[in-house]
Amino acid sequence: MAKKFADLVARRSPESQARVEALHQKLRAQMPLHELRQAQALSQDTLARTLHVNQAAISKMERRTDMYISTLRNYIRAMGGELEIIATFPEGQVKIENFAN
Amino acid sequence: MAKKFADLVARRSPESQARVEALHQKLRAQMPLHELRQAQALSQDTLARTLHVNQAAISKMERRTDMYISTLRNYIRAMGGELEIIATFPEGQVKIENFAN
Repeated sequence: MAKKFADLVARRSPESQARVEALHQKLRAQMPLHELRQAQALSQDTLARTLHVNQAAISKMERRTDMYISTLRNYIRAMGGELEIIATFPEGQVKIENFAN
Repeated sequence: MAKKFADLVARRSPESQARVEALHQKLRAQMPLHELRQAQALSQDTLARTLHVNQAAISKMERRTDMYISTLRNYIRAMGGELEIIATFPEGQVKIENFAN
């Protein structure tokens, strides 16, 4: 099993592997949005173009401590990710589906 | 290990065990907010009192498809849970920390 996974990894480009490694080191660690963007090797300009806003809007968004879930989802999607909203209880975790779209 | 966990579970009340089981069946399944509240055996009235709003406000909130992250966090905390914001990428998952408070 481990060998097969290693083969899969080896077939990726060095840049992709480096990004994967950086992400794995942070896996399940907390990270602010701007660090996540940098880990994906994306600039504020690139993200701004994807979201049809200007760079200043991205800069402002990354400093916010509260925002609409839809705004956050669009930002994460522009980086190639998917937003998941999880409620954690002593008994376990539940994914909240109200905001799926 | 398995035996010790079973002992821990057995020490809980039957009501608590039933709730745990219901939650486990839904574990990592998607669930809307009102179902999660019902799984915790909480009424809209109870939650409204905890959040210092009226029952109609809870009803309205549970039908929304978008809201501020802080609003959702307060709702989940009122049920005894914690909100987690996760960005999922092909390479792995990252917890977003901008909104921790």
